[in-house]
This record gives sequence, C-alpha cells and structure tokens, in this order.
Amino acid sequence: MSDKIRIGIVGHGNLGLGVEKSIAQNPDMKLVGIFTRRNPSDIKPFTAGVPVHALADVENFRKDVDVMILCGGSKSDLPEQGPALAALFNTVDSFDTHAKIPEYFAAMDRAAKPGAHTAMIAIGWDPGLFSINRLYGEAVLPEGETYSFWGPGVSQGHSDAIRRVPGVKSGVQYTVPLEKAMELARNGSRPKLTTREKHRRDCYVVLAEAADAAEVKQAIVTMPDYFSDYDTEVNFITEDELKSKHSAMPHGGFVIRSGATGTNNTQTVEFRLALGSNPEFTSSVLVAYARAAIRMNRVGDIGAKTAFDVAPGLLSPKSAADLRKELL
Amino acid sequence: MSDKIRIGIVGHGNLGLGVEKSIAQNPDMKLVGIFTRRNPSDIKPFTAGVPVHALADVENFRKDVDVMILCGGSKSDLPEQGPALAALFNTVDSFDTHAKIPEYFAAMDRAAKPGAHTAMIAIGWDPGLFSINRLYGEAVLPEGETYSFWGPGVSQGHSDAIRRVPGVKSGVQYTVPLEKAMELARNGSRPKLTTREKHRRDCYVVLAEAADAAEVKQAIVTMPDYFSDYDTEVNFITEDELKSKHSAMPHGGFVIRSGATGTNNTQTVEFRLALGSNPEFTSSVLVAYARAAIRMNRVGDIGAKTAFDVAPGLLSPKSAADLRKELL
Repeated sequence: MSDKIRIGIVGHGNLGLGVEKSIAQNPDMKLVGIFTRRNPSDIKPFTAGVPVHALADVENFRKDVDVMILCGGSKSDLPEQGPALAALFNTVDSFDTHAKIPEYFAAMDRAAKPGAHTAMIAIGWDPGLFSINRLYGEAVLPEGETYSFWGPGVSQGHSDAIRRVPGVKSGVQYTVPLEKAMELARNGSRPKLTTREKHRRDCYVVLAEAADAAEVKQAIVTMPDYFSDYDTEVNFITEDELKSKHSAMPHGGFVIRSGATGTNNTQTVEFRLALGSNPEFTSSVLVAYARAAIRMNRVGDIGAKTAFDVAPGLLSPKSAADLRKELL
Repeated sequence: MSDKIRIGIVGHGNLGLGVEKSIAQNPDMKLVGIFTRRNPSDIKPFTAGVPVHALADVENFRKDVDVMILCGGSKSDLPEQGPALAALFNTVDSFDTHAKIPEYFAAMDRAAKPGAHTAMIAIGWDPGLFSINRLYGEAVLPEGETYSFWGPGVSQGHSDAIRRVPGVKSGVQYTVPLEKAMELARNGSRPKLTTREKHRRDCYVVLAEAADAAEVKQAIVTMPDYFSDYDTEVNFITEDELKSKHSAMPHGGFVIRSGATGTNNTQTVEFRLALGSNPEFTSSVLVAYARAAIRMNRVGDIGAKTAFDVAPGLLSPKSAADLRKELL
C-alpha cells in the first residue's frame, strides 16, 4: 500500500495539464485519475497509464482521491463545480475573480463542512502568492503603501477583447509594468500612481482580410475598461509571426511594500515572479497547496481556506525538523 | 478594560528600542513594561510613561503580559533567558545562530509546554522572512536551485572582526551582493556559485595612531572565515567620516528560486528586502509575530514555533473576512 497523496484532476485544459506535469515533479504524490465533462476518450493525458473518467461518475471515486484539484475557469465552471465537488472531496482551486471571492468562499465553506472536507480556494499567484506578500508587507510595515504590478505577460482577458474587435483575425496582448513607476514605488516616496502610470498595454494584431488598420487601432485604444485608461501600443503582424513569436504564455509581476519605521527609516519589501509559463506555475502552486489541504484535513481543519490560512511548513514534503535544520 | 495585546520587552538595545517604535505603529498593541538586567533608571524608553523593571522581578508580571518580546543576543542572552522566560510567558525572539536552531527549538519547546505557553523563535528576516521564501520557492518549484544574497548592508560580526585587528581604531564592514551572480541566479541556468562569486566585502577603517595601513589591510584581507574567501576592499577614512557617513544600519538582500516546470519552462521567484534600518525592520517582524503568538496560544497551539508554523493571516490585525476581501 502506497502512502502517497492521491490526487484527482477535474478539467484538462492548460491548467490540468500543468497539474499533471507538476505531480510528476513531486515524489510524495500520485495522480489517480482525470475527470472531464468531455468524452473521456478525447483526453490525452501526459501521465502514462492514468485513467480518464466522466465527471458525472466522480462520486464513485470518493474513497480513491485524497485531494481533487479543480482546473476549471472562474467564470462559469468553478461557481457550479466547486461546491458540488467540495461536498464530496477535499479540493484545491484557482478561483480568481477577486470581487467574488467572499461569496465563493462562503459557498465552498457551506459545501465542504458537512462532509468534513477542506476546500482550498483562490490558490495560484494572484490571488495566492501575491496576496500573501501583500499581507506580509502590510503586517510587518503597517505605515506604508502596497503596489502590485503585473507582467510583462500575456493577459487572456485583454487578448480576448482584441479578438472581438471587427477587422481583427487574431491577436495577443501583453501587460507591461512601467519601470519608472516601479522605481517610484521602491524609492520610499510612496506616491499614488494612476492606472496609466503603472502599466502599458502592447497589442500584436493580425488583421482580417480587407480590414482597415487605422480603424482597428482606433477601436482598440479607445475601448473602455480594457484600453482607454492606458497607453496602448498596437502592432500589426502576420499570422506566422503571431504563431512563432507569441504563442508562449509568459507572465509575472511585482508586489512592492514601501514603508517607514521609527524615525522615518525607509523599508522596502519586494516579491517578484518571472514566469516562463503562467499556467504551469499556477499548477505548481495548486499542487503544493494540495499537500497542505490533506494535512489540514487530517487534523480536522475543515471548511473553506485560502493561502492566508496555510502555515508555510504545510506546503513542503520535508518534516518540520528538517525544515528548521535546512531552510530556517 | 482594554483588549489590546499587552507586550513586554526584555532588553533595550537597538532591537528593544525598535520594538517600542513598532508597537507605536500598531494600534491593537500596548507596551506594558520594559525589563532589563541593567539598572532600570538607566533606561530611557521611547514610549512616554512606560515602566522599566528589573529583569529579576519579571515573574511578578505574569498576569500583565500577553507576549514577551526577547531582544537579547543569540550568543549568550537567549540560550539562557529564552527557556527561563518561555516557562513564564508567551515569547517571541530573533535567535539567529542558524546551526544551533534545532537545539534552541528543543530547549524552548521543553520550557514552554508545562505552562502552556507559545514560544516563537528565530523570527526576523533571516532567519524569518527569508526562510519562508526559501520554503515557498522550494515547495512550489521542486526542481530548482535557491540562492540567498545578503546586503548591501552592515554586518555586525564582520565589523567586530575588523575592530579586533591591531592598528584599527574603528571600522565598519559592508556585505555587497555581486550583480553578476544575481543575474546568473535569475536567468534559469542554475549555476553553482562560490562564496567569492556571490559577495564582496567593503571595509571602512579608521587607523589607530602610528598604525601601518599596508599591514592592517593585509591582516584584514587574509583573515580566515571572515575575509579570505572574498574579494575584500579596504578603505581608510577619518573618524569624522566614519561617524557622518557610516553610522546608519542599512541591510537587505535577496532570495531567488530558479526552477523549471513542464517541458523546461524557466520560472523565477524572487524576494528582496532593502532596509533603511536593519534593527527596526527586525523589530517590526517580531511585533507582527507577537500578534500571531497570542492568537495561537489562545487556541491551544503551544510549545516552540517558527515562522514556518504561522499561517500568514495570523500576522494581520484585520479579520479573516476583511483580509479575503481586501488583500486576496
């Protein structure tokens, strides 16, 4: 009998595939099944020999899975699947609609508790590791200002917005944090920074046949909510260029806390991510928190949890004594 | 009756003074007394009206203090005071002799448990926030390499070593991380870096009368353990320059985790501190962890703890619901 942590995956897009790859890097874990709403035979798992099941049958696997990692989207998948699955399993998800987190937390808490499950929500890097760093910064430096910068990296939401513009065949949008604003955030002057001062938006667009470049550009840069509050650069490229140069999914960003202690001594805390693959990194965070979820569940710490509730040591496969000896 | 967290301070050097200043920034806390081995009337508190007591009388204040923050040194103060005080109070300390942490943890655990106290040890930035970031990096990116860089900043141990050299009247030593090594740590190539490649040591020295500069320089740069493994720069300055330009206590550093996920996508996680005052920052971390210590104690989480055992949310004065709403 193996005492590895038995993981199930729900959903097999970029995130689910990333979770598979991450489990392969964690010898204390074992992938026991992938669950999908699609036809199971359409799924090509990364992991040799792993079974793929219909999500409709998931209830039959309650005894086989220690933690279910939910890899659906926040807009329509998780609000529905999350509570249903938290009633049956310990779960980890990357719910990332910041404004709806309190509501989702409450729904997951209600769903998880009757079956004594632990439901870890909003895990990833933002929300997730960035949130923790906002919290550490504020708790350690109560007099100060926190700045979050995102990128350079691809924003799926803004890329989708470009692709909805008439005359656009395809396109991708990079969010670029502005160096000058980051320097201001770091230097202790604690400025209030506007949206336009913090980030630039760079678009790479493939025009549809007979489309007017000037019109498309104008439609993009004036789009409310998405682009009008930013300095937006629109570059027209060919479909081949889009595929060869813009199909990776890099991302990252910075959380900077600028504070003062005592007689006005400037103190700066900065956390930075530079990610070659945004979905694979998010998946790796989900997997580390799955380890914490089962550990918390085993000591009776049930209900909805966020990264704020998880002691760092619970994320590591090492024993507490080894952590103190090797990493403290 | 106030429900503020009642803090006591043991020891009133730079760290104890910093704790006083930090408590003044945290409205949910209240300083109830300073305890010293010196003559209490020799202590000049920063906080108006706060009483100063002889450490010998500390046992009389068991009912008045929620958490005692221990501001003594790791070499001789804490190994003795720590267990004695953990038997009487919840404690937080900055024990930072990395090699002796397991032994100190065991002693504090044994001392704290009989009285049901919580003893938070090795709190600050290294050990402390740097340790947490080493852990997060390793847990999220199991295939990778972790790099810790310190500085630019004053190392007290190395400054003391300079001052023991014959012919040196006074001096200060800055540890400087080397930009080239940091770039290598960040770029995903995961090199093994030698001591000499990672840091430089810059010394500012005031010569004693009639001392020979060349001899002093040679004695410093060849000193084993402290300087011989580094490129060391020795600058001779006047006593006035030392006072005017080198009396601040800046410090900081970097923890960089360089890893790979999936099919060799490079992922980099970096944590950086740039501190105007090293002791004031350490003090601020101690105070935030004092909040966690009393909260953990109130739910029965007793014995020795480190930063690895503390869920981030316990550090903030905000409620869990507010944290989810505002910072997640």
